[in-house]
Amino acid sequence: MPALKATDFYGEVTWLGCVPDRQAALSSKPLKKAELDWGGIVGEAHGGMSRASCSRVLDQHPRGTEIRNTRQLSILSNEELAQIAATMELEGLLDPAWLGASMVISGLPDLTYLPPSARLQAPSGATLVVDMENRPCQLPAKVIDAAHPGFGKRFKAAGKGLRGVTAWVERQGGIALGDRLRLHVPDQPVWPHLAAARGL
Amino acid sequence: MPALKATDFYGEVTWLGCVPDRQAALSSKPLKKAELDWGGIVGEAHGGMSRASCSRVLDQHPRGTEIRNTRQLSILSNEELAQIAATMELEGLLDPAWLGASMVISGLPDLTYLPPSARLQAPSGATLVVDMENRPCQLPAKVIDAAHPGFGKRFKAAGKGLRGVTAWVERQGGIALGDRLRLHVPDQPVWPHLAAARGL
Repeated sequence: MPALKATDFYGEVTWLGCVPDRQAALSSKPLKKAELDWGGIVGEAHGGMSRASCSRVLDQHPRGTEIRNTRQLSILSNEELAQIAATMELEGLLDPAWLGASMVISGLPDLTYLPPSARLQAPSGATLVVDMENRPCQLPAKVIDAAHPGFGKRFKAAGKGLRGVTAWVERQGGIALGDRLRLHVPDQPVWPHLAAARGL
Repeated sequence: MPALKATDFYGEVTWLGCVPDRQAALSSKPLKKAELDWGGIVGEAHGGMSRASCSRVLDQHPRGTEIRNTRQLSILSNEELAQIAATMELEGLLDPAWLGASMVISGLPDLTYLPPSARLQAPSGATLVVDMENRPCQLPAKVIDAAHPGFGKRFKAAGKGLRGVTAWVERQGGIALGDRLRLHVPDQPVWPHLAAARGL
């Protein structure tokens, strides 16, 4: 019995993008299709096999330590983006480009809490591994403010639990708008000590 | 708030090993210390950044497809190995070398079900990412039979849910017998649709 199980859950790719230069801008530019290599979306400034560790993992590594890059892609949910916009009382939608997103998917419920180590597979065979939940940060505030003055500061709180996941490439290949991604999950029980380990 | 949380759970490394030539033998040879590079334990035949996909992932990839190697290390639990041996009614212990193990850890309860995407960090800073449960296979049966004739066929059933996890290197460094590994877990709720996705 394999440990990784193909499920009947699918999500449709409704948006693709990449950040060409992270020094120049946080925003990503939209794409109609993307090529995934071992480093992520080709052309993505956050790509690469390894990365210098950042403030998010200071409990694990001194800043700037070379670690494997499990944050190659930032994947968000259409439905969750709409929820964030509603909470922010933003008229219209939250543009994924403002958040530096790599991909937006529709149809996968509670995408932010997808099981760590789950896989998302495109029709081409290209496969992404979900590392874990992404956490909202303050950085998009300025970008949002530029489009909707005064709304930026509402983003971080509104995005809690809705900020999508980070992921990395397990199998190379192409991906395009409209692709249906199939979800595969580790077919195992929840660790009985998880709540205790989380300090709950 | 970082998504990866340091916990108060630790395990001690009680055994280390590597398989020098997987064609020659399934068994691993014991080591006192090991160096971890991006491909896993240096000298391990199952190491490498990528691997040709095997029968375990036929639902995801045609056999022989190049995918990232999330099976660099096979990590087992002392306590679970003792449970397997007891169920097999084996006198004495199950030698982790027979299973081609990379590492045995003591003190982490229910190690086989450690949360996918959890990290295990050594005092050197070397860090492993848990991919998911490993599933028992028939291959160790012959090795066990050579030492304990007739017992080999009991292994697969006895090992169910106790066969440890597969893991890969997130940060390079050394690891040695006696090292205390700290467990870090994704600090997020269980995906509400997991049971449905698993078909339960």
